[in-house]
Amino acid sequence: MSQARELAGRLAWVGVDWGSSNLRAWAMAGDGQVLARAGSERGMLSLAPEDYEATLLATIGDWLPTEGRLPVRVCGMAGARQGWREAAYLSVPTRLDELARGAVRPTVEDPRLDVVLLPGLCQQPDDAGRRFDVMRGEETQLAGLIAREAEAAGPVCLPGTHAKWARLEAGAITHFATFLTGELYGLLARQSVLRHSIGDDDPTEPGCREAFVAAVQEVAAAPEAFSPRLFGLRAQDLLDGGLPTGRARGARLAARLSGLVIGLELAGARATLAEDEVVTLVGAEALCTRYALALEALGIDSRRVDGEAAVLAGLGLAHAALAHHSPTP
Amino acid sequence: MSQARELAGRLAWVGVDWGSSNLRAWAMAGDGQVLARAGSERGMLSLAPEDYEATLLATIGDWLPTEGRLPVRVCGMAGARQGWREAAYLSVPTRLDELARGAVRPTVEDPRLDVVLLPGLCQQPDDAGRRFDVMRGEETQLAGLIAREAEAAGPVCLPGTHAKWARLEAGAITHFATFLTGELYGLLARQSVLRHSIGDDDPTEPGCREAFVAAVQEVAAAPEAFSPRLFGLRAQDLLDGGLPTGRARGARLAARLSGLVIGLELAGARATLAEDEVVTLVGAEALCTRYALALEALGIDSRRVDGEAAVLAGLGLAHAALAHHSPTP
Repeated sequence: MSQARELAGRLAWVGVDWGSSNLRAWAMAGDGQVLARAGSERGMLSLAPEDYEATLLATIGDWLPTEGRLPVRVCGMAGARQGWREAAYLSVPTRLDELARGAVRPTVEDPRLDVVLLPGLCQQPDDAGRRFDVMRGEETQLAGLIAREAEAAGPVCLPGTHAKWARLEAGAITHFATFLTGELYGLLARQSVLRHSIGDDDPTEPGCREAFVAAVQEVAAAPEAFSPRLFGLRAQDLLDGGLPTGRARGARLAARLSGLVIGLELAGARATLAEDEVVTLVGAEALCTRYALALEALGIDSRRVDGEAAVLAGLGLAHAALAHHSPTP
Repeated sequence: MSQARELAGRLAWVGVDWGSSNLRAWAMAGDGQVLARAGSERGMLSLAPEDYEATLLATIGDWLPTEGRLPVRVCGMAGARQGWREAAYLSVPTRLDELARGAVRPTVEDPRLDVVLLPGLCQQPDDAGRRFDVMRGEETQLAGLIAREAEAAGPVCLPGTHAKWARLEAGAITHFATFLTGELYGLLARQSVLRHSIGDDDPTEPGCREAFVAAVQEVAAAPEAFSPRLFGLRAQDLLDGGLPTGRARGARLAARLSGLVIGLELAGARATLAEDEVVTLVGAEALCTRYALALEALGIDSRRVDGEAAVLAGLGLAHAALAHHSPTP
């Protein structure tokens, strides 16, 4: 029943990415190897502070050793004010190998747990073009990117519900901006008048790739047309005899909607790119492939770094630093 | 109990604007005077075709005369394919005094009812910049605008859940476009991550007018920044020590969100305006006042026409035309 025995002697620490709607945990060897994975749908939005320890034990209890304390390093919304315990934001610009500096220890009852929550980043407006913004979780991926590639620099995009664009320079993050792309897609596809037209997104359906690319280019060329193009999807569904029928029809319109919202993001992000800069995409393969296609449609090169590898490198960096630092008790 | 007696001898016809989520009805004298008003929350989205007659009778049954048939002239979503009976779209460009041409009579059982549903308009893409679009209800307001002011021409904006911008020329509508403005506001304010920050919209709170105007100008100048400005509202709420507290804080952020979504609409609509054109706003006073302020912030003049007066003039025009035409039985 317990995994503790098979992990015994190899498990060095546990990494956790605890977001708004779920958590993912990794059992880590000292050399950075992933020994086991676990997860739960109990994210910050469904938890009170006193629920976190029990949720953590329910998720990784099987990994706990019979003696000694297991280091658990947590990034994400668990460190928000409304989370387990607040790990106050570090201000941008900041070096990314210093996240452990802002870490805090929540109170835990189980003597086997040594839990540390990493801070997020905040940005205040200034004359250098910065604006109010916050992140929690993505900073650890960025720290991991730099841990893996010391020379990583330039624009980095982390696609998602709240997509982040960050600029890295000499081991530091200098600017970032959040785009509501994934959330906008979900609201429009499932809650707006467009829900009657938008089907399951399936880029393998014929014509979907072309519809996606065309929409990206349309909005990037004329972002002011974003809103009428949205209702235009509904009108096209009502009027366009050239659309396929059935499942292919809904997929075609979903591809177009995806292109409109990602195109709006790229129209905004593109304004911050220097000529010929290569964008580093950090995330899961399918979503990064979609972003790479959209960027390519605008003549922008990109490369991908795996999101899980990045967050584990970032958590590992913090774990190593905490062996020297002692976080706020 | 019945209003029929007091309306007797004066009631000539009934006008109905039957939308997706409600219906409004007016008892009309032959000279265009409104004798009584009624309404219901039973819009197209909550009705099957066989429910319409009973809903109409529950709403205006008190007005029905003891003998003879009462003309009931209906615009809006009741004439949609998923409504009472489909009144097929007329294609743009079209003259607006010809709506009766596309009217249909749904089957009714009550011998006192003579019901006619007016058509909506559709637009097909072409080389003149038209794109797929549809409207149902607003065309009757536009017809009424022209019935009241034969010389009405140029850009007309009808703010709302799905705001319409139309161009009138010599009694005809030549182009139109739909902006998802009201629906976007509702989704963002009540269903997105911004719901934690957006309060009740109250333009009388100090600073709200200025926040609204600044947001309109920001997005009109840089529509590509729409998406990061949205998340910026949440970040500002978390970080900005300069915001007021309590109710005023939520109202301030609501004013800014309203400015962002209306600013995005105006950025798109502005591209279709000739220099020094005056925009005719058709709708309710509060919303039109807000749009007038936004337009003014972009240096665009506007004037307002009351939305109820416009729809009644449009329905009256159709009623008069139907005395000569006979709609599709």
